[in-house]
Amino acid sequence: MVKTVNIAIIGPGLVGSEFINQLANIKSTAIKYNSILISSSKKALISQEYKPLNLSSWSEDFKNTETGALSSSELLSFLTKSVSLHPTILVDNSSSVELSDNYPKILEAGVSIATPNKKAFSGDISLWNAIFGASATKGSLVYHEATVGAGLPVISTIKDLIATGDEIEEIEGIFSGSLSYIFNELYSSGKKYSEIVTIAKSLGYTEPDPRDDLNGQDFARKVLILSRLSGFEIKSLADLKVDSLIPADLEDAKSGSEFLVRLPNYDQDIESLKEAAAKEGKVVKYTGKIDIKNKTASVGIQKYDKAHPFANMSGSDNVISIKTKRYTNPLIIQGAGAGAAVTAAGVLADTIKIAERS
Amino acid sequence: MVKTVNIAIIGPGLVGSEFINQLANIKSTAIKYNSILISSSKKALISQEYKPLNLSSWSEDFKNTETGALSSSELLSFLTKSVSLHPTILVDNSSSVELSDNYPKILEAGVSIATPNKKAFSGDISLWNAIFGASATKGSLVYHEATVGAGLPVISTIKDLIATGDEIEEIEGIFSGSLSYIFNELYSSGKKYSEIVTIAKSLGYTEPDPRDDLNGQDFARKVLILSRLSGFEIKSLADLKVDSLIPADLEDAKSGSEFLVRLPNYDQDIESLKEAAAKEGKVVKYTGKIDIKNKTASVGIQKYDKAHPFANMSGSDNVISIKTKRYTNPLIIQGAGAGAAVTAAGVLADTIKIAERS
Ligand SMILES: NC(=O)c1ccc[n+]([C@@H]2O[C@H](COP(=O)([O-])OP(=O)(O)OC[C@H]3O[C@@H](n4cnc5c(N)ncnc54)[C@H](OP(=O)(O)O)[C@@H]3O)[C@@H](O)[C@H]2O)c1
Ligand SMILES: NC(=O)c1ccc[n+]([C@@H]2O[C@H](COP(=O)([O-])OP(=O)(O)OC[C@H]3O[C@@H](n4cnc5c(N)ncnc54)[C@H](OP(=O)(O)O)[C@@H]3O)[C@@H](O)[C@H]2O)c1
Repeated sequence: MVKTVNIAIIGPGLVGSEFINQLANIKSTAIKYNSILISSSKKALISQEYKPLNLSSWSEDFKNTETGALSSSELLSFLTKSVSLHPTILVDNSSSVELSDNYPKILEAGVSIATPNKKAFSGDISLWNAIFGASATKGSLVYHEATVGAGLPVISTIKDLIATGDEIEEIEGIFSGSLSYIFNELYSSGKKYSEIVTIAKSLGYTEPDPRDDLNGQDFARKVLILSRLSGFEIKSLADLKVDSLIPADLEDAKSGSEFLVRLPNYDQDIESLKEAAAKEGKVVKYTGKIDIKNKTASVGIQKYDKAHPFANMSGSDNVISIKTKRYTNPLIIQGAGAGAAVTAAGVLADTIKIAERS
Repeated sequence: MVKTVNIAIIGPGLVGSEFINQLANIKSTAIKYNSILISSSKKALISQEYKPLNLSSWSEDFKNTETGALSSSELLSFLTKSVSLHPTILVDNSSSVELSDNYPKILEAGVSIATPNKKAFSGDISLWNAIFGASATKGSLVYHEATVGAGLPVISTIKDLIATGDEIEEIEGIFSGSLSYIFNELYSSGKKYSEIVTIAKSLGYTEPDPRDDLNGQDFARKVLILSRLSGFEIKSLADLKVDSLIPADLEDAKSGSEFLVRLPNYDQDIESLKEAAAKEGKVVKYTGKIDIKNKTASVGIQKYDKAHPFANMSGSDNVISIKTKRYTNPLIIQGAGAGAAVTAAGVLADTIKIAERS
């Protein structure tokens, strides 16, 4: 009684390539994972007859293919036809807004979705409602564990708590590997803030332009997703209070490099915050905080006692602390929250769960 | 397209009663949970026609019932008939060895199992193999999240890691609320060891006879389960190195109370361990440690750096630290690991997952 599930994979980038390699090595006797599409925005491997693509040579085959990517409507009809043959999962490993705007249509066609792409879930609340509405009506599934904390069991845990009747009261956490690293090093390295940011960039912990992390927007998208999951349905990213770490005077810096050159002028600002916290026996960290009862959420620098779990972190770990009606002492989950291997594993675990339910 | 799933509930004790109440309040439009049995070892509410028992009056109805419990073979045929009507889940909220010895037969009948009962999974490896063999052959499912860390997402996380091709290298943790409390208080309360044990008992953190916690056997069962899940298949509990906290001279104490009266004689032993650790800048905790690569596992007092996550705990929290090929900085999960509400929620989350896959 082997069940076949068709898998259409979008975005063979860092996470996507690793996803394909992990999928190729999956050990399952009960489910046959049949890959029918591997596509970037430009070109694609398409199995027109829905026969399995060869995952052991996919990388070479993808390099050599001259087939263009499917348009949105072509993708939809390709997937719709697939559903008539086997349960079908779209794995979106891109960060495309265009594709995520189409999730409702894709779900309505009976296709399930597994994705680390935050865009759909942190866009306007109307898209969120359309996605989960389509899923509820059609029975197609949406799993997006890797949109927060990569492979850490964050979203599944929150969903289990709610499904069993618990009430989420407060969530607090560090949802950025780069900002975790920068504030951890502030206490362990003895280096200046601007030096640490420069090192974080050179280690690949930040985006190519570090301002894309320091503005707090990517972090805020994750806080938005957690808020909505917990029942505080913030309308859009603009409604979230986000303290940017980009000094107003540096907003006009023409490049990431110019920004880094001018950043040392602001080391003293961070140093002062550190000193003020130290006077209260505390440390500073860049965190997100959601108070579900009082319907407030914010992202920015906060002070923590030295014995607080957030104060004793190292490296670029993410962490989440969840206080609920039942977990009055919070439930805490900590570990790597970025990186291709753990992120792809998060997406693959979701894919397996959908396949098992299909 | 509402799916009906039959639920047979064994053991309406602390966890079982809370399970029933949580089940009664579940909000699900896609699945109808149809309770067909509530049974202790002595008596039962049995829905002979497999119509839903009334969960809003179950407690009163159970008090008043004069129907005796089903024998093992009667239970098996009751469940077998249920499977011919609807997917069926046995929820075992007892700690019965007799019932867990029958899991293979129950699974072979096509019935799935959700349980916090450790007995089946920490017995001889032959029972473990029979259970997961029957599950694999028949496609019936066994979920037992609450056997370790109650509702914390411990077992599901380890299973997801392995399913996606990660390799568990080392697991370390505190899997006993009472022993967590005792060793945390040793550092925060200023009280003596024997006083803390006495308080732990009076707060209901220990078993009625505290020796049932201090002997480390219940803790060891959880370590055994985690070892086996991670691929180190220890044959039986006897093969695990467990340091008991019961001084040899107190093994003959005739009761828990006599034990507590004589325990102060041993406060100095614990104090000496504490002092020795302090000289290295460390603290002592009672923990379990599994080295999967080198195939060693043990339970006992260990020393930890003051910045280690285990060193900064409070209350009776459980914690697990999982080091893998991908999580070189370990993945850590911490929170309440006992209590009726969180344990029942763990069992209910499992029940929901089985129902969704049925
Ligand atoms: N890397 C991490 O540690 C991490 C952690 C958590 C979540 N994520 C999320 O995972 C996703 C992938 O991240 P990544 O690091 O793998 O990024 P990446 O290396 O830039 O890969 C993105 C892939 O998507 C493709 N793509 C972009 N737009 C597309 C479209 N419209 N249609 C089809 N393919 C498209 C890109 O190919 P072309 O540009 O050639 O079209 C590329 O192959 C993102 O949503 C990211 O936020 C990543
Ligand atoms: N309490 C916790 O915090 C916690 C945490 C994790 C896991 N667990 C596990 O959860 C399970 C239940 O714990 P609990 O605290 O709820 O224990 P409990 O209050 O003692 O309840 C056990 C129930 O099982 C019934 N029972 C015992 N043997 C039975 C049998 N052979 N057939 C049918 N019913 C039987 C008992 O009723 P009669 O004696 O009247 O037959 C009682 O209703 C145990 O396996 C425990 O290890 C508990």
